[in-house]
Amino acid sequence: MAAPIITLTTDFGVRDPFVAIMKGVILGICRDARLVDVTHEVAPCDVAEACLSLESSVDFFPPGTIHLAVVDPGVGSGRRGIALRAGEQYFVGPDNGLFSFAISGSDWTAVSLERDALRRPAVSRTFHGRDIFAPAAAYLAAGVPLERFGPPVTDPERLIWPACRLEGGELVGEVIGSDRFGNLLTNVRADDLDLLGTPDRLVVSVSGRDLGGPVACYADGPTAAPSPIIGSSGRLEIFANRTSARALLGVASGDPVRVRRAG
Amino acid sequence: MAAPIITLTTDFGVRDPFVAIMKGVILGICRDARLVDVTHEVAPCDVAEACLSLESSVDFFPPGTIHLAVVDPGVGSGRRGIALRAGEQYFVGPDNGLFSFAISGSDWTAVSLERDALRRPAVSRTFHGRDIFAPAAAYLAAGVPLERFGPPVTDPERLIWPACRLEGGELVGEVIGSDRFGNLLTNVRADDLDLLGTPDRLVVSVSGRDLGGPVACYADGPTAAPSPIIGSSGRLEIFANRTSARALLGVASGDPVRVRRAG
Amino acid sequence: MAAPIITLTTDFGVRDPFVAIMKGVILGICRDARLVDVTHEVAPCDVAEACLSLESSVDFFPPGTIHLAVVDPGVGSGRRGIALRAGEQYFVGPDNGLFSFAISGSDWTAVSLERDALRRPAVSRTFHGRDIFAPAAAYLAAGVPLERFGPPVTDPERLIWPACRLEGGELVGEVIGSDRFGNLLTNVRADDLDLLGTPDRLVVSVSGRDLGGPVACYADGPTAAPSPIIGSSGRLEIFANRTSARALLGVASGDPVRVRRAG
Repeated sequence: MAAPIITLTTDFGVRDPFVAIMKGVILGICRDARLVDVTHEVAPCDVAEACLSLESSVDFFPPGTIHLAVVDPGVGSGRRGIALRAGEQYFVGPDNGLFSFAISGSDWTAVSLERDALRRPAVSRTFHGRDIFAPAAAYLAAGVPLERFGPPVTDPERLIWPACRLEGGELVGEVIGSDRFGNLLTNVRADDLDLLGTPDRLVVSVSGRDLGGPVACYADGPTAAPSPIIGSSGRLEIFANRTSARALLGVASGDPVRVRRAG
Repeated sequence: MAAPIITLTTDFGVRDPFVAIMKGVILGICRDARLVDVTHEVAPCDVAEACLSLESSVDFFPPGTIHLAVVDPGVGSGRRGIALRAGEQYFVGPDNGLFSFAISGSDWTAVSLERDALRRPAVSRTFHGRDIFAPAAAYLAAGVPLERFGPPVTDPERLIWPACRLEGGELVGEVIGSDRFGNLLTNVRADDLDLLGTPDRLVVSVSGRDLGGPVACYADGPTAAPSPIIGSSGRLEIFANRTSARALLGVASGDPVRVRRAG
Repeated sequence: MAAPIITLTTDFGVRDPFVAIMKGVILGICRDARLVDVTHEVAPCDVAEACLSLESSVDFFPPGTIHLAVVDPGVGSGRRGIALRAGEQYFVGPDNGLFSFAISGSDWTAVSLERDALRRPAVSRTFHGRDIFAPAAAYLAAGVPLERFGPPVTDPERLIWPACRLEGGELVGEVIGSDRFGNLLTNVRADDLDLLGTPDRLVVSVSGRDLGGPVACYADGPTAAPSPIIGSSGRLEIFANRTSARALLGVASGDPVRVRRAG
């Protein structure tokens, strides 16, 4: 049987030993688990950013992969811990909206992580990643069925994302993040562009500045100017060939993006 | 038999290929070793910081884990290389105090890494991580007994940590580091607080500023003010809910921390 | 049979999920591949820097290792993707010079990655790391022979490195990079020094400043002054014991380095 895969997504950074501690706990429970870091550089406590990173990644992992995510400002307070199956992927972490994207449909089941025997013997109020979530992911990987972890959860927390909408013939969305290259990520998806029909040419504007229509690849964009593109995650992005669109445009999450038919 | 686990702790950073080089060397000797990064972001040459990271992590790894640590300003000079077993964990690295915490008791054995056959054929004077320590960790993982690596060492180097002490009815310690979230780590352990008896309430002060008593979880602390807490490593920490206590207080390693009975 | 090893070298950073996405794709194709990060902190689009990191690392990996490298400013444009065998190591990535060092001799074979069946079903024009290169590395790891991936390539792109030369009895090279410790890497190799004969003492100068001759280990250098040393990669480096030679000297890539006989 193939070794189980566990991915890890946190805001712990890689300087402190927190991630290694979780990995040690996992390997103590499920010695043959394959561990893959998604990111540990989520901005501290930024649940939405972690959610976006996970959403971009999970479909590329084999069925049965377990996604352990710990961005957990509410650790030790009343918030639940959950494990859930959505489609063929599993998720473990605090119930604070981290997995919103995975439960937008109806094919999911969630449980509250309450069973003492599937936690570390002493549970702190400051590091549930170590004491509750890493053990849960490892026991899942070792074959413990989801329903053994605790009672069902039918109302997991969900993040409310700003929706992209049609307004006076224009598609109106916003910047929702950026990547290492300074590419700006928007909440406009390739599908959303269909709402404008299939015009010859589109014009994208960010914070009121017209950028022309989407190009096909990064190398097609001018070097020192921002251009739109449909990025690898299927979202409209703004990039600048070999420079940072974020720096060039000086925009941030929440700033408006508009798309209209040209001419 | 379970695949052996080797953890890695260095000050090499993740930009340069040094860590990968060590991993290549390890896999060339022990192909099935499981490699887990503890951290590679130790401040350059900061042996004490690496020691703290290791101390926080090792107990969470399965028995038999090998902890390879290379923070090694004295590489190529006279300092020894050592391998040691302490309890059920193994340690490999320069003999400069990195493993002080592991040898505070009496259940340990150490050897000096002198056997040529268990090093790379050509040993440089600039990268013992590659030429001596990675091979030693890999050969240990492959089953070579500790005593084969070289003569016993009975006097490994030890770091002298500042001790926390009782002074005029107050517990006096100091800040010894901080983490990614800006939480300040102190040398006051949960046990040390017993020295104050079991009062109703404690008051913690940092650099002369009273912060009240420890709270139970991060979410219980006020948002923009620093609070004490017993952290996940069993140490007294100072944190600020969703902000950085380090930035708020402007304190650094070595600054005093005091704990007294309230009222 | 030993599990195949795939190393990863990119300029994707570790904050965004791009590296994890490639790993997910790999594990979906070759579940038992061992994944080792070389670096993901290559400066964005800096093919030469990635080439240097790979060059320093590959010889330390076991025969048969597959080195996947994606620093790819030309993604989606006309540039080819290649897989190549050089000696006993394999390389997969864009054909933009990344693997120049591996094809300096004659023992290599390369192919153009054109076979649809060995790519992801839908190939984007923005993320060939995910759609073409990760699958190619994984299929290679799973045992697909190199020649199946596409037609032979006899003229892969090569980077032209500045050569170190003898000029008026002096060896003249340049700074080509630096590492985390602020050590400056040069294009002068240990072998090149033989061009000066075997004098009693050498003098190295950087940007016109004499630094004395190479010392044997870092601990032999004065603390606050830069010294030359033959580094672990066999190159002449300039370092400063426990400080940064880069900061002390204020030099950058391209600045001249000279070596002459003393006296």
